[in-house]
Amino acid sequence: MSNGELTRRTFLTSVGVTGGAGALFATMGALGHAPVRVATPDFQAPQRADFHLTGRSTRRIVILGGGIAGLTAAYELGKAGYDCTVLEARDVSGGRNLTIRGGRVEKDLDGHTQRADFSSGTYLNAGPARIAQWMVTLDYCRELGVPIQPFVNANADTLIYQQAAGAPVRFRTAKADLYGYVSELLAKATDQGALDTVLTAEDKARLLSFLEDFGDIGPEHDYAGSPRRGFASYPGAGEDRGSPLPGPPSLSDVFASEVGRYLSFEFGYDQAMMMFQPVGGMDRIAAALTARVGRQRVRLGAQVLKVTGGPSDVTVTYRQGGREQTITADFCIATLPPHLMARIPHNLGTNITAALAAFFPFAAGKIGLEYRSRWWENDERIYGGSTQTDLDIGQIWYPSHDFHAPRGLLVGYYHFADAAEAYGALPPPERTARAITQGVKIHGPKYRTELASAFSMAWHRTPHLEAAWNYAPWDDPAAFRLLLQPAGRVYFAGDWLSQAVAWQHGAFLSARAVVTALHQRVLKS
Amino acid sequence: MSNGELTRRTFLTSVGVTGGAGALFATMGALGHAPVRVATPDFQAPQRADFHLTGRSTRRIVILGGGIAGLTAAYELGKAGYDCTVLEARDVSGGRNLTIRGGRVEKDLDGHTQRADFSSGTYLNAGPARIAQWMVTLDYCRELGVPIQPFVNANADTLIYQQAAGAPVRFRTAKADLYGYVSELLAKATDQGALDTVLTAEDKARLLSFLEDFGDIGPEHDYAGSPRRGFASYPGAGEDRGSPLPGPPSLSDVFASEVGRYLSFEFGYDQAMMMFQPVGGMDRIAAALTARVGRQRVRLGAQVLKVTGGPSDVTVTYRQGGREQTITADFCIATLPPHLMARIPHNLGTNITAALAAFFPFAAGKIGLEYRSRWWENDERIYGGSTQTDLDIGQIWYPSHDFHAPRGLLVGYYHFADAAEAYGALPPPERTARAITQGVKIHGPKYRTELASAFSMAWHRTPHLEAAWNYAPWDDPAAFRLLLQPAGRVYFAGDWLSQAVAWQHGAFLSARAVVTALHQRVLKS
Repeated sequence: MSNGELTRRTFLTSVGVTGGAGALFATMGALGHAPVRVATPDFQAPQRADFHLTGRSTRRIVILGGGIAGLTAAYELGKAGYDCTVLEARDVSGGRNLTIRGGRVEKDLDGHTQRADFSSGTYLNAGPARIAQWMVTLDYCRELGVPIQPFVNANADTLIYQQAAGAPVRFRTAKADLYGYVSELLAKATDQGALDTVLTAEDKARLLSFLEDFGDIGPEHDYAGSPRRGFASYPGAGEDRGSPLPGPPSLSDVFASEVGRYLSFEFGYDQAMMMFQPVGGMDRIAAALTARVGRQRVRLGAQVLKVTGGPSDVTVTYRQGGREQTITADFCIATLPPHLMARIPHNLGTNITAALAAFFPFAAGKIGLEYRSRWWENDERIYGGSTQTDLDIGQIWYPSHDFHAPRGLLVGYYHFADAAEAYGALPPPERTARAITQGVKIHGPKYRTELASAFSMAWHRTPHLEAAWNYAPWDDPAAFRLLLQPAGRVYFAGDWLSQAVAWQHGAFLSARAVVTALHQRVLKS
Repeated sequence: MSNGELTRRTFLTSVGVTGGAGALFATMGALGHAPVRVATPDFQAPQRADFHLTGRSTRRIVILGGGIAGLTAAYELGKAGYDCTVLEARDVSGGRNLTIRGGRVEKDLDGHTQRADFSSGTYLNAGPARIAQWMVTLDYCRELGVPIQPFVNANADTLIYQQAAGAPVRFRTAKADLYGYVSELLAKATDQGALDTVLTAEDKARLLSFLEDFGDIGPEHDYAGSPRRGFASYPGAGEDRGSPLPGPPSLSDVFASEVGRYLSFEFGYDQAMMMFQPVGGMDRIAAALTARVGRQRVRLGAQVLKVTGGPSDVTVTYRQGGREQTITADFCIATLPPHLMARIPHNLGTNITAALAAFFPFAAGKIGLEYRSRWWENDERIYGGSTQTDLDIGQIWYPSHDFHAPRGLLVGYYHFADAAEAYGALPPPERTARAITQGVKIHGPKYRTELASAFSMAWHRTPHLEAAWNYAPWDDPAAFRLLLQPAGRVYFAGDWLSQAVAWQHGAFLSARAVVTALHQRVLKS
């Protein structure tokens, strides 16, 4: 950028200069302030009264896939009395909304079989694990009576581990150092007049006042550490002011360490705290939906073989208990992962197959490590949250619940793409061994010696799912749009057809959109 | 600061320049990285075996004040069999560790009497409400079997309300705008060479890479808003990418609004998330301590009238049930607020009285507002945390527990000094009315119409406490030090004799220090 562009015009509106504080603040309200109420997407659940009033009758619906999208479609349509049947290929409903407890068996596509040995009360949310405040998922928790508790998605006392550094640093320390040096640099540049062409004297005074506080740099504008970094031992009784941590490192060292790359995660609109999880496991949502739909309507172990759309109905062929069966309904809602749906024979047109196949399946892996003690709480004072690394484990999560219990479960890796493929290709015991070797680098030998059991998911190698999630083909928006419309009497739904891919929020809203469209069509027919 | 001081020497150590990345990172570890284990203050609780081994016998201890310091002293000494009696003037143990539930009655020094009308399950932690991960308070929760849960001390979706702006802004929005503009300013100054004398080319590249991510300013280094600001409606199904909030305001407007002053709170070593609270109310700690000490040892309604130290014992005169009584013990531990202890006749010396009177009592007030609905969750998507204001209410806290319950309790103010004195001087119904009028400015009329009941504490007007906490006389360190030593057989303890004033952590550790000193003295005697 050229020097000339850096003018006052770039930074200042005339309001602040000419209108005085009153006008300025009035403008603030108009320009930038959030309405306190968050608009949630309009949705009117179908009701029985919709039919009573019109004299029309409900319809039979066959739903392919008993994940969140499929269950939600059945649940919402069920409110108006639609006769829904859900075909789910796996032995449990919920799809990727999967909580692993002791006794759970998973066999992957490579023939690796695992049985969870977790003790009672211990569980791994193998798929979705966190819910942001604005997500419709929370509305479903409230409506379904699923109690929630905080999910710790950011914690000043978790760690950043970079291989080159060889020792972890706590987030609070990295943050204090980065904010300190950024403030020092900008304050000194301001002091020296480097911003005089773009800032008024008032702007400068306000900026410096902010930086002194934000970076804890003092009136001299030198960052020389801060209690915000944390302590080797914290202030205590009498005159014990605690022991500071060594440091801070020099500005150059702090930026060279690249710890700064981990700080923006917690600013994300979908990741910023507070976040939440159901008490007792994410599958409480799937279980509650399934119960409301009615277990008898959710056929487990039912694998879809063929979809045949006709002018007035849809026939689905599926295999359950080794027997091929068909079901005919007025409409079908297909919520299978698109790359799997693309493989199922149908008569909906080759453009549909091509559009489904255009999505990008994505690999992710997660491992649950049950420990005999909660050493991360008792010894390291880490109560929830995640440690971020540049190791192939990606991150380590500490549990957000049952604090101070005798045992607990860490997520020993949550990783994607190449790392997920590399671990997923290993037999599960080797995945565990590799994860433990990495974790020992951060937490020391207890990471190995305190281990009780492990269970890992390689989503891309999990039958009937074969991906952690699917990204839309952004180079081919027509494919995405095509699937937002019904193919005859077949509708498509899932997080993959939303702007919240890999979030239950997307699956819920996509299902709602299809429910609304289908119901309106029925009421008009 | 002069220009000349801003040299590379200020910012760079020679290590990074001469030693290459390997040396640099090795130095990082030595310089700045936290040991993962947090050193907790050494403490060996007295044990019965200490006496068995030495043939000595335990002693009688009289403890003045049944707050956290007094109860902890009795609890820890009790482990070795000391015969402790706690004299507590109030009708409940715990001191400022006070949870208000339905039916609780408090009468203040001005004759205002309140009876809490909270419904079952609703409570106000009127005193301490949050616990940082490193605090010894958590160790006591674990040891005492008091379950804990997260306390939401920072939340991107809570609000900043400034009177001049007239409309609240969410923290996430303020943060995105401030970090965006700070990054833009520093990146542009760097681009223009303003920092060439202090940064190497490598430093600059790393700094810019950090700022682009930290401020979400893109390769042009222009802040033009960010999804991090939040949305008027969030991304949803199909092609619904959500609706952005209006804004961002100009750089000048953002700094003029002074929202930045609220951002550093969450960096504090004692305030950074994660923080915790006992499940069911903070007084679970006091109740558990009291139960371990033995209820029969904690005399409620026992007001200390006189302390007489002798060469081999201490006699305490107190009034209980209208009757004056005395108790004689081998030692006394005085944990009353220092300004109240200073008023009690004793023979410990005028220097002790002067030292006690040198502490600064501080005023704080808190109000609990019970609501018939959790509109802040359901309508405004605020799940816990606090809204910060420049109104005389200071802040509004949203509950960190029982999310989605039918009802909930907000802290309608938590304020200090002048604001606390002003509200505390009012009859409680007027305090409520004033707090509601302020809250309506932020949350609208439901802040008034949904209110079910209210209960307020003015700590500085609460009998037997008369302060929220006491600050040490830092202009008179000798006074502080004097009280760290026993006055004959009388020891002093409390958060006021620690480096964690106003935190239970300080009270626990101060009590431990006195327990250790007293026990060592007994073992040596």
